[in-house]
Amino acid sequence: MPDDLYSVTRPAGFRAGGLACGIKKSGRPDLAMIVSDGPARLGAVFTRNAVVGAPVIVGRRRARRASGRAIVCNSGVANVATGHRGLDDAEAMCLAAATAIDAKASDVLPCSTGVIGQPLPIEAIRRGIGQLAPQLAAGPDADAATARAILTTDLVPKAAWRTVKLGRTDVTLGGIAKGSGMIAPNMATMLGFITTDAAIAPAMLRRALREAVNADASFNRISVDSDTSTSDTVAVLANGAAGGAAIASAGRHFARFGDALADLCRDLAYQVIADGEGAEHVIRVTVTGARSDRDALRAARSVADSPLVKTAVHGGDPNWGRLVMAVGKSAAKVDPARLSVSIGGARVFHAGEPTDFDPAAVSRAMGGREVPIAIDLGLGEGRCEYLGCDLSRDYIRINADYTT
Amino acid sequence: MPDDLYSVTRPAGFRAGGLACGIKKSGRPDLAMIVSDGPARLGAVFTRNAVVGAPVIVGRRRARRASGRAIVCNSGVANVATGHRGLDDAEAMCLAAATAIDAKASDVLPCSTGVIGQPLPIEAIRRGIGQLAPQLAAGPDADAATARAILTTDLVPKAAWRTVKLGRTDVTLGGIAKGSGMIAPNMATMLGFITTDAAIAPAMLRRALREAVNADASFNRISVDSDTSTSDTVAVLANGAAGGAAIASAGRHFARFGDALADLCRDLAYQVIADGEGAEHVIRVTVTGARSDRDALRAARSVADSPLVKTAVHGGDPNWGRLVMAVGKSAAKVDPARLSVSIGGARVFHAGEPTDFDPAAVSRAMGGREVPIAIDLGLGEGRCEYLGCDLSRDYIRINADYTT
Repeated sequence: MPDDLYSVTRPAGFRAGGLACGIKKSGRPDLAMIVSDGPARLGAVFTRNAVVGAPVIVGRRRARRASGRAIVCNSGVANVATGHRGLDDAEAMCLAAATAIDAKASDVLPCSTGVIGQPLPIEAIRRGIGQLAPQLAAGPDADAATARAILTTDLVPKAAWRTVKLGRTDVTLGGIAKGSGMIAPNMATMLGFITTDAAIAPAMLRRALREAVNADASFNRISVDSDTSTSDTVAVLANGAAGGAAIASAGRHFARFGDALADLCRDLAYQVIADGEGAEHVIRVTVTGARSDRDALRAARSVADSPLVKTAVHGGDPNWGRLVMAVGKSAAKVDPARLSVSIGGARVFHAGEPTDFDPAAVSRAMGGREVPIAIDLGLGEGRCEYLGCDLSRDYIRINADYTT
Repeated sequence: MPDDLYSVTRPAGFRAGGLACGIKKSGRPDLAMIVSDGPARLGAVFTRNAVVGAPVIVGRRRARRASGRAIVCNSGVANVATGHRGLDDAEAMCLAAATAIDAKASDVLPCSTGVIGQPLPIEAIRRGIGQLAPQLAAGPDADAATARAILTTDLVPKAAWRTVKLGRTDVTLGGIAKGSGMIAPNMATMLGFITTDAAIAPAMLRRALREAVNADASFNRISVDSDTSTSDTVAVLANGAAGGAAIASAGRHFARFGDALADLCRDLAYQVIADGEGAEHVIRVTVTGARSDRDALRAARSVADSPLVKTAVHGGDPNWGRLVMAVGKSAAKVDPARLSVSIGGARVFHAGEPTDFDPAAVSRAMGGREVPIAIDLGLGEGRCEYLGCDLSRDYIRINADYTT
């Protein structure tokens, strides 16, 4: 099991670790660091919510600089809606981490996830960083501790890794993530931290990350409940420790690195959805035949976010009417007479009319962990793959029970 | 109680009725007619879903003609996704109703709500129309029967009426509605049927209806679960039986008539939300200070549709973080430093930071039937009032349990 979590320190030249510094009343781990021994390139993407936490404001500055040495992340308090003090605290967290690893504050990306509107317990975090920095290490145990320390109400830690050969150079990528667990007054936040020993120019790293998070079924193609956190962050540190020439243009090496990065992001995104709140099924929505990829995304998102679709999947109900409704209400161009819908491989709707399918058989096929829904709009070449999850009573329980 | 439902035949010159023609296995009423004794103007608005039922396709033709005598509506089968046969059936339903009241098929607006993908039992409907037409009457009992016959899984019938004085003429408006009750494989459909004895030109009627359904907290400003039915229809018949000159331009009489129509629509829309599936609370979202009314609508809809907001209201949790998140994720222009949020009259967030409010007191205030949420974006004059409802375990139960 710890070996499954061996991830962010698989690439050469990284150390990591996590511990409990006292933010979470439960005593669970709540502070993590990921550090590159030498200078590294930093790429990062952030939530599109107009309201963002202090760490995202600071993080955007770091991403513009495009270089960095470390990520420091606490869980338990999100440092969102905390005003000027929040910004000071985020910078103070960076400074503490930087001091401990002999770097500059501007070399550190700060992240926080947890309760909104409470100030960071910055003294506890400072002490925690002082304690954690000397313990940072490479290996399965260090990565497992790191992956656990960034969780809030996730049920399981999430990690993945990939290798790719660029010419004669073996490059490794590793990543951890946290997903959607929300207990009032927490909010869902998605965090993804990725390391690689690839050598790559900042502009290429930024482009590879942007493409990777927007790839089919990757971080920007998943939804637990259609709500967008104020803290979502996916960051990658690339330190070049594997050697070889830096990827400087969109050639063959860039393509291979980009594919590996996208594949890693998809793996982590799947783990986030599979651990979605109250989720018993992963819904894999594949839209083809759209007028454009953008239209395909619109249709796929509308299906994956529809409460009626999500409850139908929860109930194992092959309710194609709701799928057709959800496609139709999206902003995508739709012609019912060209529309086809399949559930679990069985065609249930074709050219404007239901097929003569066996509801009991399709219902049984919906009992699996993953429920594939395929929509063919029959209008063009646009396509998209999107992941959602079912809507269960547990989601209501987790999010409605008043705990403050 | 029956008097509460006295509605569509309050205006002069209308008869109505409803009965069970055998579509619903439960034996409940499933066929309704509303008829004007003389020629009338017809205004109608329909779902924006790209996939629509046969009655909507036929109904749009009727609305272009702008004149009509009757509305015929069945519940139990929606006549959606039924191909050419569905169109033939919708026209056959009109013809049967027209024949029974000595009118043309093109004078009849057809509506259907219920199961998708099944053909209309057109013979049962023909027989039902033949039986119902001679019984049509004015008065509380007729209207109660009509209001009940258009329901699917609604818990209560919905009706309202208004009067307005236009010069020396007393004009009456009456309306019934059905809302969001969905049991697999049914879909939510919102229907609103309105009658008035006002004399009004078709263009003015169309404009008044469009403004009325888009008024604050009216039909286009409510949401049970963000899903849009393939059958939504709001129609108004105006027969001029009250006498007086026809409203032909946007003067004082038009304004007064329009206000009454909007007020009636708001009343019916509220009843639809209050009877939303599993709903225990009506959420009244008021957005002010938006850069435009359109932006206000975006922000209000995002709040009312957010699963995390809906579950927080269900749990009586004054979780302002979710409200701020929902405003921020909308397409509206938002500046957190200018944003204010109140719940039940208590300011919980102001200028980018939480206030020092009493969570227990606000939680108690959230225990009422209606939970007011006020958002001030602090950016302009745009405003909107929108109604939603909470998300409960009952919603999951109603929509997930497999019944086919």
